[in-house]
Amino acid sequence: MPERAALLAANEAFYRAFAGADLAAMTDVWTAGPLASCTHPGWPPLTDRDEIVESWRRIFDGQSAIGVAIAGAVAFAHGEAGYVLCYERIGDAVMAATNIFRREGGRWRLLHHQAGPVAQMPEPRAESPRRVH
Amino acid sequence: MPERAALLAANEAFYRAFAGADLAAMTDVWTAGPLASCTHPGWPPLTDRDEIVESWRRIFDGQSAIGVAIAGAVAFAHGEAGYVLCYERIGDAVMAATNIFRREGGRWRLLHHQAGPVAQMPEPRAESPRRVH
Repeated sequence: MPERAALLAANEAFYRAFAGADLAAMTDVWTAGPLASCTHPGWPPLTDRDEIVESWRRIFDGQSAIGVAIAGAVAFAHGEAGYVLCYERIGDAVMAATNIFRREGGRWRLLHHQAGPVAQMPEPRAESPRRVH
Repeated sequence: MPERAALLAANEAFYRAFAGADLAAMTDVWTAGPLASCTHPGWPPLTDRDEIVESWRRIFDGQSAIGVAIAGAVAFAHGEAGYVLCYERIGDAVMAATNIFRREGGRWRLLHHQAGPVAQMPEPRAESPRRVH
């Protein structure tokens, strides 16, 4: 499978675990190594793998499904590392996400996830920002 | 220089260019290749290098300095790619940032920047999130 398609498939596996509130699948999506990080929207970055798994356990707690859908995913492959950008829609909220992966034993596994709010799901050629940062 | 120290130095060069509203330095910080992306807070991801440079030109327009300071930078090196997480303080706003770099000709250059708001500059051992995502 071409690298970018494999990255997009790994990204989809992450959101499938998320939408299914499936902690075992979510744990498997993440790197097996200790270097991991996760920035949930509005929260400080978590930089410990166990703490990240625990954060998903709390998010999934008591739920059998979460209404998250993605759009506009683009993948960037750079050798043994790569990343995917996409939009997440959760209820009325729209987030922009960065998901960084690395190859481990022939699989792309997640090193880092950040999602932050965007004003809206944009048109493909939205205006560049004018305000400071 | 150890990899993580070199990544932190590259991250500092990015924020020096940002704080100095220095478009030439900012352009030099970014990858020379076409694969680049930048998610300014609240805005859709930009995935074209020229568009990214243009966004910084607009941000810097007419300013000689921007009051941005960083804290809590941590670096993750993975071979030819690496990334730095840090907090940005801009006025009263606090952002969590992800900055992805890759090696180009012995230098770490920026592939991707995302910043998104966090509630506050946290304590080092802040609580894990409880709400959905």
